[in-house]
Amino acid sequence: MTQSITITGIGVGPGDPSLLTLAAIRAIEEADLIAAPTSKEDSAGRAESVVKAILPDIEVTRILFDMTQGPQGISLREQSAKEASRQILAIANSNSFKKVAFITLGDPNIYSTFGLMAKYLKAMDPALSIRSIPGVMAFQAVLSGHPMELTDEDDSLILLSGLADIKDIDLAAQRPDRAVVIYKGGSKIPEIKASLYRSGRLEGAIVGVEVGTATSRVLPLSEIDGPLPYLSTVVVPPLHHKGADKKSSWNNKLD
Amino acid sequence: MTQSITITGIGVGPGDPSLLTLAAIRAIEEADLIAAPTSKEDSAGRAESVVKAILPDIEVTRILFDMTQGPQGISLREQSAKEASRQILAIANSNSFKKVAFITLGDPNIYSTFGLMAKYLKAMDPALSIRSIPGVMAFQAVLSGHPMELTDEDDSLILLSGLADIKDIDLAAQRPDRAVVIYKGGSKIPEIKASLYRSGRLEGAIVGVEVGTATSRVLPLSEIDGPLPYLSTVVVPPLHHKGADKKSSWNNKLD
Repeated sequence: MTQSITITGIGVGPGDPSLLTLAAIRAIEEADLIAAPTSKEDSAGRAESVVKAILPDIEVTRILFDMTQGPQGISLREQSAKEASRQILAIANSNSFKKVAFITLGDPNIYSTFGLMAKYLKAMDPALSIRSIPGVMAFQAVLSGHPMELTDEDDSLILLSGLADIKDIDLAAQRPDRAVVIYKGGSKIPEIKASLYRSGRLEGAIVGVEVGTATSRVLPLSEIDGPLPYLSTVVVPPLHHKGADKKSSWNNKLD
Repeated sequence: MTQSITITGIGVGPGDPSLLTLAAIRAIEEADLIAAPTSKEDSAGRAESVVKAILPDIEVTRILFDMTQGPQGISLREQSAKEASRQILAIANSNSFKKVAFITLGDPNIYSTFGLMAKYLKAMDPALSIRSIPGVMAFQAVLSGHPMELTDEDDSLILLSGLADIKDIDLAAQRPDRAVVIYKGGSKIPEIKASLYRSGRLEGAIVGVEVGTATSRVLPLSEIDGPLPYLSTVVVPPLHHKGADKKSSWNNKLD
C-alpha cells in the first residue's frame, strides 16, 4: 500500500518566534517539504522569517500568493490558493514526499489561506490527509502587556476584519457584555474610532500595531489620529458595570 | 532600588502539552514561584498536569479556586480570584520572589480567571508588573483534525459561553457569514442543537469533547443525542454560498 500524503497547516503565531508551539516546531522538523506563502519569490514571507529565527537551517519552498485586498482580492486569493495547492502537490508527488508542512502566520483556520487551500487540496487528491496545528492569534498577543478579563462567564467576543462594514462594527459594539476585536483595520482607524465613540466604547480600547515585528507597539486607541498600517488590531474590552445587574443594561433584542 | 514583583499569566493551551509555546516554557523555567489553580489542594489542576508533562521537575504551588458555575459562581469566583491574589503576593513577599508565574488553561485573558486576578493584584500592589503570555484556545484545537476556512475576509467569528441565553445563540447564528463558537456548553447540547437547526446551521457544526485530554474527540454535532461533559466546544462554520453574492443573502439589520 502506498502511504498517502499528509499536509499540515501550521500556525506560527503573530510574529514573535517564541510564540511557536512545540507541536509546530516538531511538525516542521519532521516534514519532507516546508512550504511558505510569500508575496515576492525573492524574499522571505513573514511565516518563513518566524520559523527561521528558531530553525535557521531548514529549507523553505516559497509559494507565491496574491495578497490583494478587497472584493477583487477574493477571487485572486482563491486563484492563488488553488494554484498553491496544485504546486505543492506537484512537488510532493514528483519527490515522493509524504509529510508536507504549510506554515502560516497566526492560526491556520482563522483569516488564513490554509482553510481555503484545504478545500482545493482535498478536491485534487481525495486520499490526502489534511490537518492543522493551531497558532496564537494577533489579538491574543496584543493583550500580553495589557492583561485584562477580556471575556468572562456570559460575556461574548466578536472578531471582525477591517473589511466589515462600519455599521457591523456599530452593531457589534452595542452590547456592553461583548468584547470586540477588529483585525487589519489600520486604514479605517478614524471610522472605527468614530464608531466606538458613538457606542461609548472608545475608552479602554487599545490597538496593536505590527504586533510581532520589531516595530510592534500597543497604544490606547483614543490617542491615535489618522490611519495606521494594515496589520493593526483593535481590542475593545466589554463594559463591566460594577455592582449593576449586567443583564438589565442592554436591550436584548440587539445581538 | 528594590526590584518590584512581575506576575506573568501564562496560557498553557487547551490540554495537549505540545501546544505549549516556547515563551510559556521559558517563563515557567525562569520563575521563582509557579502558581496553578486547582479545585482540590491534594490533586493537580489541569494546567499543572500540562506543564508537568514537559517540565516534570518543577515545583508548583497549588492555589485553591472555587469553580462553581452560574450566577452564584460569579461572586464566588471573584472571591477566589481576590483570595488567590492575596495568597500569591504573600508567598512572593515573604520569600522575596521577584518572578511569579501563574499558569492557566487556554489563554490567560479569554474566559480565564487571570484577567480578574490582574485587577486585584494591581489594587493590592500598584508597583507590580503584570503581563501575560498567550495560549492556544480550545476551539482552535478542535479544528486541528478538521481544517476549514473558519473565517475569511469579511466573515466574523463570535465566541459565546454555555452560560449565554439560547436566544443569543439564535441571534449569533442568524448571520450566514459568521462563525459561531460555544464554550462550555456541554450540558445545554440539546438546546444548542435545536437552536442551530432552527437557523439552518446544524449541518457542518462540530463539537470537541474534552479536547486536550486522553478522552478527547471531535464529532459532528448532528450525531450527538443528549448532554455532553461540561468542557465541550461547539464550532459552527459560516455558510458560504458558492457563487452567490454573500451580502445579498441576509438582512443586514441583524447583527
